[in-house]
Amino acid sequence: FQAPGFAEAPAARVEPAPQADGATDAPLGAARAQLHQNWIVAQTADGIVIVDQHAAHERLVYERLKAQRDANGIASQALLIPEIVELSEADAHRILAIADELAALGLVIEPFGGGAVAVREVPALLQRLNAAALIRDILDDLADQGASDRLRARVDAVLSSMACHGSVRSGRRMTADEMNALLREMERVPKSGQCNHGRPTWIELKLADIERLFGR
Amino acid sequence: FQAPGFAEAPAARVEPAPQADGATDAPLGAARAQLHQNWIVAQTADGIVIVDQHAAHERLVYERLKAQRDANGIASQALLIPEIVELSEADAHRILAIADELAALGLVIEPFGGGAVAVREVPALLQRLNAAALIRDILDDLADQGASDRLRARVDAVLSSMACHGSVRSGRRMTADEMNALLREMERVPKSGQCNHGRPTWIELKLADIERLFGR
Repeated sequence: FQAPGFAEAPAARVEPAPQADGATDAPLGAARAQLHQNWIVAQTADGIVIVDQHAAHERLVYERLKAQRDANGIASQALLIPEIVELSEADAHRILAIADELAALGLVIEPFGGGAVAVREVPALLQRLNAAALIRDILDDLADQGASDRLRARVDAVLSSMACHGSVRSGRRMTADEMNALLREMERVPKSGQCNHGRPTWIELKLADIERLFGR
Repeated sequence: FQAPGFAEAPAARVEPAPQADGATDAPLGAARAQLHQNWIVAQTADGIVIVDQHAAHERLVYERLKAQRDANGIASQALLIPEIVELSEADAHRILAIADELAALGLVIEPFGGGAVAVREVPALLQRLNAAALIRDILDDLADQGASDRLRARVDAVLSSMACHGSVRSGRRMTADEMNALLREMERVPKSGQCNHGRPTWIELKLADIERLFGR
């Protein structure tokens, strides 16, 4: 597995979209523009495709994390400086109670006294992770799912939260190369057509649809 | 009146779209991409606009020609070398019968013997005109409209044909500056929202519409 390549990075200007019209033969086409810093517009052979960059990338990270877990466990990376997250004592207790599960997912936490926990390792796939925000989301997941849920569902919920935190956000400019790499990976990963919540990550408007919008 | 600026020219690569997000305040937004060499995609404050470049430009040229006719007559430009158009004798007779009307519209033709006519002057607004194709379209207009039509309707049909021949075609790459100039002129000309045949020249998808397409 490669590092995601679309993780949060300093905002940059969009590069000029490549004009190689041959790339439009691919199912999701050639990226031509990023609109409102979230919608990737690509030209296909006979239409245009609009991609929700955050939803698509979140799904790809989720699929990568699940595949890694199923293959040989999620690789973690130690933080140079552990990140201390302040919580209520009850929340600290709840999150530390599933520390073993989280460690199997690449997220290594330890008690740090009082309501605090120290995050020592994070999944290697998730660069520039905001560990505090992730841990609060995992606590929300736990509250939502309750104690009765099967472990697998709980783990998937944690992976889904990790994917959300590890994916490229709305509002981040992407270069043409990044956009095209995202489109090509979406073509490789069959489940990438739906986001983690079951909504489509891309839609296609055929030229015939566009002409219909124009009353043709 | 300025020369159109969007007339046929050698195909060129699309320039990188300017990233000045401020331009998205304009009603028709900032051009971001040209898709399938006909659809201009622009980003507005709260959505995206898709423009049919040929239909929009044709309408603008038509409005310019009508305004020029109503103000002080359509300026013509003599061709360095008259263009000889071969027609049937009947067609040559029919087109020469309205030579005075055409001259008032900037299109000066003369008999050239047999079925041929010579085009000596063309409307200055219409650069790189294919005079033979225009004259054949005008003959079609005459056949469609019949002899009973009012002069004004006939003249408008001729202007409409002229606009079609003088406007930027589908299949011609436009630079970002050309696309933005087209958008700004469309904002100035109230009738530019419909093509000469009554169909819309642009449509807007609000972000809310796009999100609905994604099941949000």
